[in-house]
Amino acid sequence: MLRGVLLDLGGVLYVGDVALPGAVEAMQRLRASGLPTGFVTNTTRSTRSGVAARLERLGFACEAGEIHTPAVTARAVIRERSLHPLLLVHPDLRWEFPRQTGAAPDAVVVGDAGDAFSYARLNQAFRVLIRGAPLLALARNRYFREPDGLSLDAGAFVAALEYAAGVSAELLGKPAPGFFRAAVRALGVPPEEVVMIGDDAENDVGGALSAGLQGMLVRTGKYRPGDETAVAGRAEVFADLAAAVTRILGSQ
Amino acid sequence: MLRGVLLDLGGVLYVGDVALPGAVEAMQRLRASGLPTGFVTNTTRSTRSGVAARLERLGFACEAGEIHTPAVTARAVIRERSLHPLLLVHPDLRWEFPRQTGAAPDAVVVGDAGDAFSYARLNQAFRVLIRGAPLLALARNRYFREPDGLSLDAGAFVAALEYAAGVSAELLGKPAPGFFRAAVRALGVPPEEVVMIGDDAENDVGGALSAGLQGMLVRTGKYRPGDETAVAGRAEVFADLAAAVTRILGSQ
Repeated sequence: MLRGVLLDLGGVLYVGDVALPGAVEAMQRLRASGLPTGFVTNTTRSTRSGVAARLERLGFACEAGEIHTPAVTARAVIRERSLHPLLLVHPDLRWEFPRQTGAAPDAVVVGDAGDAFSYARLNQAFRVLIRGAPLLALARNRYFREPDGLSLDAGAFVAALEYAAGVSAELLGKPAPGFFRAAVRALGVPPEEVVMIGDDAENDVGGALSAGLQGMLVRTGKYRPGDETAVAGRAEVFADLAAAVTRILGSQ
Repeated sequence: MLRGVLLDLGGVLYVGDVALPGAVEAMQRLRASGLPTGFVTNTTRSTRSGVAARLERLGFACEAGEIHTPAVTARAVIRERSLHPLLLVHPDLRWEFPRQTGAAPDAVVVGDAGDAFSYARLNQAFRVLIRGAPLLALARNRYFREPDGLSLDAGAFVAALEYAAGVSAELLGKPAPGFFRAAVRALGVPPEEVVMIGDDAENDVGGALSAGLQGMLVRTGKYRPGDETAVAGRAEVFADLAAAVTRILGSQ
């Protein structure tokens, strides 16, 4: 029995600035069923409200409060621990974080900074880490799909800094179990009755399973043949979101 | 009995553009002894003749032929396998490589490209690797010492690409045993009678030991307290090059 649905965004609902075939209609059917729904994304190139605006533009009605991003978690961690982090994040994401003070950085936050990744900036981060400061990773995804091909995601740069400074990052986004649990709490449904739908076998589906949720893998977005072996026997696999939603609604 | 000496450069002979105290005089004593000598560097920011010119400028007489760099090895590998690599190397190193043709890249070569590392360029390399092309790493050093602090070396970017593309790099520079053996062959002395002097416990000393050489670690350059534990009981440790040379000449 399913009583709640969490969805990944890029690669499940859309790729780049184009909704995937059938995805808008599938979301309408899911919404009409009344099942509580949330969006769990490791996209770290835009703010929560930026993500909501994009979804609206592509035809997916939603509210910013339904969207769970690693930046929101990072902001809470920074406040709790009174950190003054060096931010290696996308320029569009800067205002999700407290204003940078003149204090010497005592932590590093890495997201998918895109073109803002430069040798100089990575080197600044390295020099903070080599002094023993913690490394907070918004995500450690390997790559994501853009309209013209796969592109490097935050994980590559997290790996670079971990290797150089000899440290291990603290992961805030998927597949960290705490990130899924926060999204489940917002649905008000027990984890075992929530299914996570994603195109990333490792970060979406594997992560959700580890957090006690159910999982569904879709063969869109970054999916590459063979990915399902990572979750074989533990998650169902569907051609796309429409097929997954049909299955969810058929089992109600 | 020692019959040949290999030396690392940065952090042993000099840091930045300044010779280390006593290093010029120590090299003069070593040269005067007549022991065959070579330089084995993972520096991938300049050509072999650029390295030689820098040594001369700092007061270390040498010939380009005595200098062993990963780029020289890379050039040979590229020729042998008829590769058309995408080059992620320092602009000063470009001319060590065959001229780029219009052919689609079928390999990636990574050195310490410094400020030439950009998201766009790393992403191009990633897209070549994700298609199955080999990754050739000139070096995988974590960091090196600059006058104003430690800085990210090629290894960080090799780790980033390995992580994102799910591949393992083929290492051409230190600590690859083949790289040390090529330098030893140029000395005309059996490996077990050659000592490698370096400030990097892992890449200089550990690598040399793995290739059957002897090793000496100096506490200059990138050396950080505790580094010697990695080679404990297998290599001697000295305050600097002068102390190491005194020991070598005293044992003759």
